[in-house]
Amino acid sequence: MGERRLGEEELIAQIFAPLAAPSGFGLADDAALLASPGDLVVTTDALVAGVHFFPDDPPGLVAKKALRVNLSDLAAKGAEPAGFLLTLALPPDWTDHWARGFAAGLAEDARAFACPLHGGDTTATPGPLMVSITAFGRAGERFVPRSGARPGDAIYVTGTIGDAALGLAVRRGEAVAARLSAPARAHLLDRYLLPRPRLEMSQALRRFASAAMDVSDGLAGDLAKLARASGVGARVELARVPLSEAAQEAIALDPALRERAVTGGDDYELLCCAPPSAAAALELAARAGGVGLTAIGEVAAGREAVFLERDGTQRRFERPSFSHF
Amino acid sequence: MGERRLGEEELIAQIFAPLAAPSGFGLADDAALLASPGDLVVTTDALVAGVHFFPDDPPGLVAKKALRVNLSDLAAKGAEPAGFLLTLALPPDWTDHWARGFAAGLAEDARAFACPLHGGDTTATPGPLMVSITAFGRAGERFVPRSGARPGDAIYVTGTIGDAALGLAVRRGEAVAARLSAPARAHLLDRYLLPRPRLEMSQALRRFASAAMDVSDGLAGDLAKLARASGVGARVELARVPLSEAAQEAIALDPALRERAVTGGDDYELLCCAPPSAAAALELAARAGGVGLTAIGEVAAGREAVFLERDGTQRRFERPSFSHF
Repeated sequence: MGERRLGEEELIAQIFAPLAAPSGFGLADDAALLASPGDLVVTTDALVAGVHFFPDDPPGLVAKKALRVNLSDLAAKGAEPAGFLLTLALPPDWTDHWARGFAAGLAEDARAFACPLHGGDTTATPGPLMVSITAFGRAGERFVPRSGARPGDAIYVTGTIGDAALGLAVRRGEAVAARLSAPARAHLLDRYLLPRPRLEMSQALRRFASAAMDVSDGLAGDLAKLARASGVGARVELARVPLSEAAQEAIALDPALRERAVTGGDDYELLCCAPPSAAAALELAARAGGVGLTAIGEVAAGREAVFLERDGTQRRFERPSFSHF
Repeated sequence: MGERRLGEEELIAQIFAPLAAPSGFGLADDAALLASPGDLVVTTDALVAGVHFFPDDPPGLVAKKALRVNLSDLAAKGAEPAGFLLTLALPPDWTDHWARGFAAGLAEDARAFACPLHGGDTTATPGPLMVSITAFGRAGERFVPRSGARPGDAIYVTGTIGDAALGLAVRRGEAVAARLSAPARAHLLDRYLLPRPRLEMSQALRRFASAAMDVSDGLAGDLAKLARASGVGARVELARVPLSEAAQEAIALDPALRERAVTGGDDYELLCCAPPSAAAALELAARAGGVGLTAIGEVAAGREAVFLERDGTQRRFERPSFSHF
C-alpha cells in the first residue's frame, strides 16, 4: 500500500508500550518482574490464523479472543487476572493498520479485566499470523483442579452451550446461516468471535466447586476429560444443557446441529462440579454475580461420561470433542 | 511414513507429561500453580522454523535452544530458573519421531537447569513449526534492569562474541565454511545451535551489576539498546571484544566477518555494567563461576554507543543490529 511499516522497536514502543503495566519497565527490558505475587496460576493458549480465527477477522477481536481464552482458564481455576505476556508472530504481509487495531482491542480488554501487559516477543514468520498469550492469575486460597469431582457432585455449566460452534457455521456461510433470523445470526457470530471469560465465578469456584475447567473443545469431550482427571463417571441429561434462543432456532432448522452444539469448540463457558452440601451456595453466588448457572447432571461412579436423551437412552456422538489435530 | 501419529492428548500424556513439575497436575489441567514463588521474573521468546532455526536441525537441539534463549534472559536479570510453559505449533508434516526427539532434548535441559515444565499448549498450524516458551525465574533480592548503567561504569561481556553469527555462516555453507579448519567449523556450529545461558552469573549480577541484558541481536545493537534504556552513551574498544580462536580463524580468512561477529545475533552471552566500586568483585565472581568475563569499554555521558578502532577512530556498522523484520 506504499505505507512505510514500523520496525520491531517502533512496533513495541509505539503500539504495545502503552499497554504495559505501570509498575514495569515499559517493555524496554528482556523480562518483567511480578512483585510478590503470592501463589500464582499460569496458563498459555495460542491462536493461529486459519486455524483458530479467520485471517480477515477484525484485529481487535482477534486480540480480545487471544486474551480471553486465557482469562477463561484463569476463571476456571478460581484465579484473578494479574497480567500477561504476548508473543506475536507476524507474516510478511502484516500492516501497521492491523497492528494498531490489534493493540487497541487488546488495550480495551487489558483495562476491562485489570490485566496489564508485562512483556512479550515479536517475531517474523513466513507462515500464518500467530498470537500466543501467557496469563498470570492470583490464586487466592485455593487452586480449583479438574481432578476433584466425586460421585454425587452436581455438574454445572455457565451461560449457554454451542453458540460459538454454531457461530462458526454462520461465519463459514453454511446453509443454515441464510435461514436464521438476523438477530440469531448476530448473536451466534458474536459468541464465536468474542468469548466471555466467566471471571465473576472465580471466587465462588474457589469456595464451593470440587472441580472445574473451561469448555473450549466442546462440552462432551471436555466433560470426558474432567471425568478422566477425577477418576469418575458422569451422567448428563441432554435436555438440561442450556441453549440460547438463537441456538434453539438453528437446531429447529437443522436438528443435526444439536450434536454440534454439544461437541463443538470455543464456548469458553465453565464446567464445574459441587458436592450437594455446596450446590445451593454455588448457585446463589452465580446469581449474585449475574452469571447463568445450570445443573446438567451428576458425577457418577465408574469411568464413563454419558449423555442421556429424555427417554433415558444414551446419546453417542460421532466426534465427541473438537481437535485441531 | 505409514506411521500412526499420536493425537493431541497422547502427545501430551506420553511425550510431555514426563517433563512435568512433580508438584503439578501432570499437565492434565488448564493451568498450573506456582506456589508462593516470591518475586517472579517472567520472560518469553519464540523460535520459528526457517527464521530462527533450520527445519532439519535436530529436534532435541531446537528444544534446548528454545528453552535456553529464555534462560539466558533470566540470567541477565539475575534470576534463578523456576519452570516454564511450552507452546508448540505443529505443521501438517510433524512426526512422532520429531516430537520424541524434541521432548528428549527438552527433558535433558529441564533437568540440567532445574527448570521443570509446568504446562502449555499444542496446536496445529498450516505454517512453519513454532516453539514459544515462557520461563519463570525466582528474582532473588534484586531485578537487574537494562536501565541502570551510569557514566563511569565498566562494560563487560561474558564468553566470546560472534561465534553464533559465524556458526550460522557455516550452517548456511557460505564460502568461508569450506576454508575453516574442522575444529573451528565444529566450534562455531555448536555455538550457533546450542547457546549457553550464563546462569552462573545470576547471583553476581544481582550483587554487583548496575545493568545487564543478554546479547541476542548482536553486541553493537544490544549495547545501543542498553545505553538508550539507561539514558547514557558507551565507548567500546573493538580490539577488546573477546573472540574465540575459531572466530579469529574465520576473520583472518575474511576480514569482513569481523563486523558480522559484532553485529550478528544469537550470542546469548551477557552484556553487563558495573560501577568502579563493584568491578573487581564482579570479575572475581565470574572467575569463581568459571565464566569468562571481559571488560570491553566504559559507560559515558551522552547518548551514543560507539565502537572504537585501535587508532581511536569510530567504527560505523552498516547494519548494527540483527532483526527478523
